[in-house]
Amino acid sequence: MLRTHTCGELNISHLGKTVTLCGWVQKSRDLGGTTFIDVRDRYGLTQLIFNTDSDATLREKSRGLGREFVIKVTGTVIERTSKNAKLSTGEIEIEVTDIEVLNPSKIPPFMIEDETDGGEELRAKYRYLDLRRNPIRNNLMLRHKMAQEVRKYLDGLNFIEVETPVLIKSTPEGARDFVVPSRMNPGEFYALPQSPQTFKQLLMVSGFDRYFQIVKCFRDEDLRADRQPEFTQIDCELSYIEQEDILNIFEGLTRHLFKTIKGIDLHNFPRMQYADAMRLYGSDKPDIRFGMQFVELNDIVKGKGFGIFDNAELVVGINAKGCAEYTRKQIDELTEWLKRPQIGVTGMIYCRYNTDGTLKSSVDKFYNEDDLTNWAAAFEAEPGDIMFVLAGQADKVRKQLNELRLEMGTRLGLRDKNTFAPLWVLDFPLLEWDEESGRYHAMHHPFTSPKPEDIALLDTAPGDVRANAYDLVLNGSEIGGGSIRIHDRTLQALMFKHLGFSPEEAQKQFGFLMDAFEYGAPPHGGLALGFDRLCSIFAGLDSIRDVIAFPKNNSGRDVMIDTPSTIAETQMNELKIKTVL
Amino acid sequence: MLRTHTCGELNISHLGKTVTLCGWVQKSRDLGGTTFIDVRDRYGLTQLIFNTDSDATLREKSRGLGREFVIKVTGTVIERTSKNAKLSTGEIEIEVTDIEVLNPSKIPPFMIEDETDGGEELRAKYRYLDLRRNPIRNNLMLRHKMAQEVRKYLDGLNFIEVETPVLIKSTPEGARDFVVPSRMNPGEFYALPQSPQTFKQLLMVSGFDRYFQIVKCFRDEDLRADRQPEFTQIDCELSYIEQEDILNIFEGLTRHLFKTIKGIDLHNFPRMQYADAMRLYGSDKPDIRFGMQFVELNDIVKGKGFGIFDNAELVVGINAKGCAEYTRKQIDELTEWLKRPQIGVTGMIYCRYNTDGTLKSSVDKFYNEDDLTNWAAAFEAEPGDIMFVLAGQADKVRKQLNELRLEMGTRLGLRDKNTFAPLWVLDFPLLEWDEESGRYHAMHHPFTSPKPEDIALLDTAPGDVRANAYDLVLNGSEIGGGSIRIHDRTLQALMFKHLGFSPEEAQKQFGFLMDAFEYGAPPHGGLALGFDRLCSIFAGLDSIRDVIAFPKNNSGRDVMIDTPSTIAETQMNELKIKTVL
Repeated sequence: MLRTHTCGELNISHLGKTVTLCGWVQKSRDLGGTTFIDVRDRYGLTQLIFNTDSDATLREKSRGLGREFVIKVTGTVIERTSKNAKLSTGEIEIEVTDIEVLNPSKIPPFMIEDETDGGEELRAKYRYLDLRRNPIRNNLMLRHKMAQEVRKYLDGLNFIEVETPVLIKSTPEGARDFVVPSRMNPGEFYALPQSPQTFKQLLMVSGFDRYFQIVKCFRDEDLRADRQPEFTQIDCELSYIEQEDILNIFEGLTRHLFKTIKGIDLHNFPRMQYADAMRLYGSDKPDIRFGMQFVELNDIVKGKGFGIFDNAELVVGINAKGCAEYTRKQIDELTEWLKRPQIGVTGMIYCRYNTDGTLKSSVDKFYNEDDLTNWAAAFEAEPGDIMFVLAGQADKVRKQLNELRLEMGTRLGLRDKNTFAPLWVLDFPLLEWDEESGRYHAMHHPFTSPKPEDIALLDTAPGDVRANAYDLVLNGSEIGGGSIRIHDRTLQALMFKHLGFSPEEAQKQFGFLMDAFEYGAPPHGGLALGFDRLCSIFAGLDSIRDVIAFPKNNSGRDVMIDTPSTIAETQMNELKIKTVL
Repeated sequence: MLRTHTCGELNISHLGKTVTLCGWVQKSRDLGGTTFIDVRDRYGLTQLIFNTDSDATLREKSRGLGREFVIKVTGTVIERTSKNAKLSTGEIEIEVTDIEVLNPSKIPPFMIEDETDGGEELRAKYRYLDLRRNPIRNNLMLRHKMAQEVRKYLDGLNFIEVETPVLIKSTPEGARDFVVPSRMNPGEFYALPQSPQTFKQLLMVSGFDRYFQIVKCFRDEDLRADRQPEFTQIDCELSYIEQEDILNIFEGLTRHLFKTIKGIDLHNFPRMQYADAMRLYGSDKPDIRFGMQFVELNDIVKGKGFGIFDNAELVVGINAKGCAEYTRKQIDELTEWLKRPQIGVTGMIYCRYNTDGTLKSSVDKFYNEDDLTNWAAAFEAEPGDIMFVLAGQADKVRKQLNELRLEMGTRLGLRDKNTFAPLWVLDFPLLEWDEESGRYHAMHHPFTSPKPEDIALLDTAPGDVRANAYDLVLNGSEIGGGSIRIHDRTLQALMFKHLGFSPEEAQKQFGFLMDAFEYGAPPHGGLALGFDRLCSIFAGLDSIRDVIAFPKNNSGRDVMIDTPSTIAETQMNELKIKTVL
């Protein structure tokens, strides 16, 4: 090794030892006859001291050192006069006798500090320098530790990690596939997996019993903020189980991670029906770190002559506790925020419950004090609260009110990053209507089983069929989802029929799976956790980008290596493809 | 859970317990009033006994059960009268009181037994059934365990597993890339990584210090036997180290795997110069489970009038110990084997050292008893041995003799699968001449550093420059390779120049890496182990195919899911590509 120790391990017990360290120059101070240099590596920071008065060569060398130079120094561990309690090495310093520059550095384009002056684009271009910063490196070390703990936990429960292929087959269901032209089979393509779904089901048919994989998945979607074309799943599947078993096992995994990584005991994993989640939070992934549940007002507000409410499918609101003091300006600003196209509210009604006990709404023309007292009762409001009410088409208004609720939760400081509120959302619908294609789509995927008691509804009311499907939600983010799968050929074929597949098309695309079901497929189900998102929540980050070493930007581009890029004509010719712009 | 126990865990201590098992019907025997059924799962096999005389329903149900039906049975654990010591559950059986068919099975296309009657193609098509067979499942369980141990070992040495991207940039060096058209950036492509080489080097520039990843890599090559388009590497990189450190660490990892997985202590990791490996074994991956080193005969055979030897660049042979009794027919057959186009020997000379002490060669016309005695001395041959000698152009004849040596090793039983002989091959050449392109190629890759003392040769004798590159060889297979990398921009640029890149081209393709070297890149190096190959050697297999859950065939095709396949016209249009057949 070029070094005897790392920059994070020396302390008072090493006094007098001759050591050699390697690392980056973090900073340098020249105080006349003495130069101090902080040298940094992954493990920490150590102070070097150069008595440059007595050694001209050393003086020369130490003065030429710029930030981020890579150096190798040899010296003696001595006690520091002014100790730094914040640093594990803060009690000692190294009196340097020899120094070698292993590699110089140009001046970095931004500061390699916990708080940097570099903008997002610059840091993306020099990602290898951004990764030198402690916060980013710590994220990736956290991620490593989490992956190790996931594997340890699942291995302990007899799960086997099996690698499934990356070059698979393009299927018409789900998101858009990335495809890979095959040179050996001209005119044909592989696809990159959106998930190993069919393979893990086949592993169940094979008797693997308990499978997992921490695995890269791919989706060629227009990248909304915080989506990546390649992402990582903790993918699991089990045989001979019921939904309850899966919930218990993955509660266990989540608890294990919180305990081992963050030292937190998670106690409660409440469960909520999908229908209730939509009704009470307008979301299938409610953030239950705070209450502020929706209150439906149809029964008490209709028929008073206020057209907007009278004509609305749903009138629904939330109670913002302690916000009665909101000024007109604040409310207007909130309303403007709601009117942005991505939310699309046309107008918001409010009702203040003043601290003096009076009630004052923005629709006093239609609702008298008695009416408003009924509102307050419905909201369980107290003096000092304000009620915000939206009206419109039920699904739409719930989505809008969800945005308002989350925004108010944030403004009121109810969404603390150090509070963790997991939640199971159960009994998702099997199908959802897709306007664009004019047909039902699988809400989860086509392999999810309907609840047996709802199968009869497939013909009469497909939208009402509930699935054996569940999501794990944490602090308002979906961190995982899964289902009990279909393991019967006939039911699977029925499902494809309802998704608009002809029998021939279903056989062509998914014949291998349906065939497999005919050779003794066991009952099975599973779950996939979004590992990037889970890591970002553990790291207290809003974005998944900084738990990924080399993320892509919103155009799917890695600006550091400059990809995607054009390829050589010869490559295209070998692949028998042509670009048609 | 649908079951109380697995099919592998019940024993005499469970007598009298009521249990429920799930699994597949392995076999069924109907003995009048009693039916015996073996039920199987991943964990083992349990015998079920049905007293069908007393229960007509049970009789009905048990008789309808075919092979590979999935069943759920409840019953009582009782002691077996005829115990089976080979089975962990062999002391007990289950007296069944209730049985449910969870899923029937068609008759499988081949026997689900350790030894199956299914041909390779049939088993590939029904891979999910082939995976049910114990030997295949055991391979994948072994693989899982090995991956866990690799991670445990490297984590213990402060290595961090970092996921590098799968959608990267196509580069002209190395093998052919798989490419992925970008929909968001029409006309541009990602490439799938042949290895995470540049990313792991960037992680070193970032100060990650010790990186590893068990990672899928991709090569679009014509598939020779036992190559897969996607394969898995244990990829590692370290900073502030020298070659010696890397050899020690990965010796340690290999020892750890052998110890924990196979209970074997590996003692010796000999080291050999590349030049010696080629001279003594004609291979850069010698199988040193046996000797039979090459003996060069130029000095003693030339000038005796035998044209083939006189005109040859190299006359070289091996001593096949104890094979003097080989018949003329056996030798002819061996010669024919050597004449196959893939080896291309034109003729083989032999010299028998008979047990009576006489020497008899196929070139007695040119060499007398004294000459042959000299041969025998060179070969250190004893009575009972036979010497095989080839002649020709040095590189070519060494490759041919390597084939003969391996074949003789196999015939003589010297290549036992339970003997493990690791070997480091060191000091590979930096460059190798490529006839086709008429230029030098990097033997390892363009990031491998030359030995400092050889840099001056780059201009005068590029082929003689040795690299700081090493391979780990196990039983004649290369299981890993690595090098100390270049970490200096100028040297990297020089390397690209010698590989025929213009400065502009080098900057366009690898500018990000060369730029990174200017910001304090530490000295670093690494190694990648071929995980598929390593697993196959541990499993005692000749092929990597059966340590991969869903391998592709020699045309790069997965015949089970039928991929690659054509994609929809709309997909092509969105990607702005066209097939040109």
